[in-house]
Amino acid sequence: MTEPAVDDPVWTRKHLLGLADLTRDEIEFILDTAASFQEVSTRSIKKVPALRGRVVVNLFFEESTRTRMSFSLAAQRLSADVLDFSAKSSSTAKGESLRDTARNIEAMGVDIMIIRHPSAGAALDLSQAVDCCVINAGDGQHAHPTQALLDLFTIRERKGRIEGLNVAIVGDIAHSRVARSDMRGLIKMGARVTLVGPPTLAPRTFEQFGARVVHKLDDVLPELDVINMLRIQKERITSPVFPSVREYVQLFGFDRKRLARCKPDVLIMHPGPVNRGLELAADIADGPQSTILRQVTNGLAVRMAVLFLCQQAAGKGR
Amino acid sequence: MTEPAVDDPVWTRKHLLGLADLTRDEIEFILDTAASFQEVSTRSIKKVPALRGRVVVNLFFEESTRTRMSFSLAAQRLSADVLDFSAKSSSTAKGESLRDTARNIEAMGVDIMIIRHPSAGAALDLSQAVDCCVINAGDGQHAHPTQALLDLFTIRERKGRIEGLNVAIVGDIAHSRVARSDMRGLIKMGARVTLVGPPTLAPRTFEQFGARVVHKLDDVLPELDVINMLRIQKERITSPVFPSVREYVQLFGFDRKRLARCKPDVLIMHPGPVNRGLELAADIADGPQSTILRQVTNGLAVRMAVLFLCQQAAGKGR
Amino acid sequence: MTEPAVDDPVWTRKHLLGLADLTRDEIEFILDTAASFQEVSTRSIKKVPALRGRVVVNLFFEESTRTRMSFSLAAQRLSADVLDFSAKSSSTAKGESLRDTARNIEAMGVDIMIIRHPSAGAALDLSQAVDCCVINAGDGQHAHPTQALLDLFTIRERKGRIEGLNVAIVGDIAHSRVARSDMRGLIKMGARVTLVGPPTLAPRTFEQFGARVVHKLDDVLPELDVINMLRIQKERITSPVFPSVREYVQLFGFDRKRLARCKPDVLIMHPGPVNRGLELAADIADGPQSTILRQVTNGLAVRMAVLFLCQQAAGKGR
Repeated sequence: MTEPAVDDPVWTRKHLLGLADLTRDEIEFILDTAASFQEVSTRSIKKVPALRGRVVVNLFFEESTRTRMSFSLAAQRLSADVLDFSAKSSSTAKGESLRDTARNIEAMGVDIMIIRHPSAGAALDLSQAVDCCVINAGDGQHAHPTQALLDLFTIRERKGRIEGLNVAIVGDIAHSRVARSDMRGLIKMGARVTLVGPPTLAPRTFEQFGARVVHKLDDVLPELDVINMLRIQKERITSPVFPSVREYVQLFGFDRKRLARCKPDVLIMHPGPVNRGLELAADIADGPQSTILRQVTNGLAVRMAVLFLCQQAAGKGR
Repeated sequence: MTEPAVDDPVWTRKHLLGLADLTRDEIEFILDTAASFQEVSTRSIKKVPALRGRVVVNLFFEESTRTRMSFSLAAQRLSADVLDFSAKSSSTAKGESLRDTARNIEAMGVDIMIIRHPSAGAALDLSQAVDCCVINAGDGQHAHPTQALLDLFTIRERKGRIEGLNVAIVGDIAHSRVARSDMRGLIKMGARVTLVGPPTLAPRTFEQFGARVVHKLDDVLPELDVINMLRIQKERITSPVFPSVREYVQLFGFDRKRLARCKPDVLIMHPGPVNRGLELAADIADGPQSTILRQVTNGLAVRMAVLFLCQQAAGKGR
Repeated sequence: MTEPAVDDPVWTRKHLLGLADLTRDEIEFILDTAASFQEVSTRSIKKVPALRGRVVVNLFFEESTRTRMSFSLAAQRLSADVLDFSAKSSSTAKGESLRDTARNIEAMGVDIMIIRHPSAGAALDLSQAVDCCVINAGDGQHAHPTQALLDLFTIRERKGRIEGLNVAIVGDIAHSRVARSDMRGLIKMGARVTLVGPPTLAPRTFEQFGARVVHKLDDVLPELDVINMLRIQKERITSPVFPSVREYVQLFGFDRKRLARCKPDVLIMHPGPVNRGLELAADIADGPQSTILRQVTNGLAVRMAVLFLCQQAAGKGR
């Protein structure tokens, strides 16, 4: 009898704010649920009625076409109605607070809010202001939990496990919510995480979370099972903490030469969109080690799982 | 036998342009229909098939996230397909007239157009140019009938009746389509309406509609059953007809001191979004007398009713 | 037995990039399929389940409210889920290539991409980058095949045939993708095409495609069965190749005087939006010879047919 008892379900949260809160069991339960939704996306009729008549609102205070589309498609695949709230044309432009905006939208009968916001903590704030489910789609430099979950899903899918793997995250760790969420998820799942970047972008303070910090990518290449290359944010390049692009590419850009020094079955990940020829060479991005497009596909399944589980937990709590 | 005879239905209009045209029976019929739709929004599957396969287009020539979302959700809850027409990116930017734009959109098989437009009379114009249903979602300073209907609905829901109540509308009456529509609806339903504001914003000319005009809020507080606080439009504050914000708040802002002088069961309404601390103190906006979020919720039911009734009348007329 | 044999279907393409590729039989098959979808739009429930659970993405790199709405409504009428990809707020603004953007969107499980792009050849490029269906909704000055198909459909509907008709296309032929696609389709279907415009806008080089080029509209009026007036692109008017508006209207504007010199059953077409009083007089645009709104209505049926046939062909090829 391995089935969970009815009064002790694995997933009881109506919000997904970050991976820091979650247990390893919870993360595994999301990944398992995502695996079962993966099949839906291979059908010709890519629909299940799980969220029929439910309303999902994308509350995006930062532009993000991909993440918004991924959540919208995930919600539609669950038969939910989806509405986009565009922060630009909204009352927030008239000085209304996030809480007021959110409470008003909730009063329209919304079941799930997906929030992206430039301020760390905005998703938590929102979850305290409303009764509906809140999914964090990226808040400042704090967290981007569904990105981390889809990365974990992709690693598990390709490697069969996460525990015991050597995973590097390379680039501007300090300013990256993806790096923070990936690191937390990977460590929880038993991977060994190495953060790689120049000292200004990968400071030693990250060691407190249980990760190793190194400043030379070439030193660690042969031991890695997975390399997650972060996008160079071009708006940061002019910052004094950022090296010149040429120098960065020389030290941290991933290309054929560096691939040759890796294990033959190394996975090359990237949250997209790739700066081809900068942090990642074009042939590597399109090569057999790359999981870039598979990450996008898996993102749908992971987001379906998150929407479904949170909504279900909210329903039980009522 | 209280059922209406088949050949004498209460609602026969395919457009909702303003409340000036409507009889008291018609307004009551919309409110009763809305009450029956209210229940749909409390279901876990918030859907009825009433408008399945019908197409609703939001034709918004003025930005309005809330009203557009409310209409979209109402239409989706009736199972309609909803499309947004964004005036900015459209042919109207190429100099096409509203009529040409509307006829073209109608030719795509649209059943209902919801129009918001900066010009008074635009909804009427539109209704004369197309055969489909036209719902006015606000035209200039002329009318905003669904806002008035949801206000009436909320008053009736909380007070059990509208007839005989003392209702004040406070603020910039002169430039407000909400004030105009509310006043007309309230008077038709038998309420006594008091318009409150400085002489430049609440001129005596409004008395011709059957309302009382007063310039001091404090004079009338004890007798009021409902107080509807209008939003200060900040873009008007620099106008010579508008007092300074400080002076305005002192004379017309609603706070705990003023609440203490009201009947204990007074209702505080606001069309949103609230300027907290200006026309309405934050604790009053969130207090038990406030109906602000309930107005938003009721807006869904009222808009479902309007969409449903107009579409049904259009179908009969064919 | 006139039914096509099962292993020899008329339509086997999963992309619609332009009419240059298509045979006359293929064009006729699309028009026949559109005619059968036309009926759906006259039902009260304007829906068929043909594309239920399929995902259609509008990938518009040029603004076009009408064409986007027409494709969205066509897809919704086939029960597909529709998502808009807005080029402005997207990763392409971050320098990502069309191919990368498209592959990422495809990885989310998209079945059909509808692309509008300022560069000729963008639709072909896209079709080589992705496995899903690609529909060209206008690429630079190259092609706009669904516009041409709806024009052919409208001519066939009103005239009973296309073969043998004298059809003029009047205006800025040189810069018009509509003119190019119309010309190709009309010639394939057996019409005689006359291109009319000043030498700078209707150069003799177009004769290589089998069309006649003339520079005086008045010379050919009496012999025409169909006149397709192109829109004056106001942004071109200041170009040195463009005559003054006044001169243009005098030489090529279509009005009552010119109509009087035509056959009584001449059709006046226009791809919209019309500059009333410039290329087309207002009374002619609204008159009985005008097919303008009917073209819009037929556009829905034609786009339903194209979406349906390409998706079906893609399904077979799998």
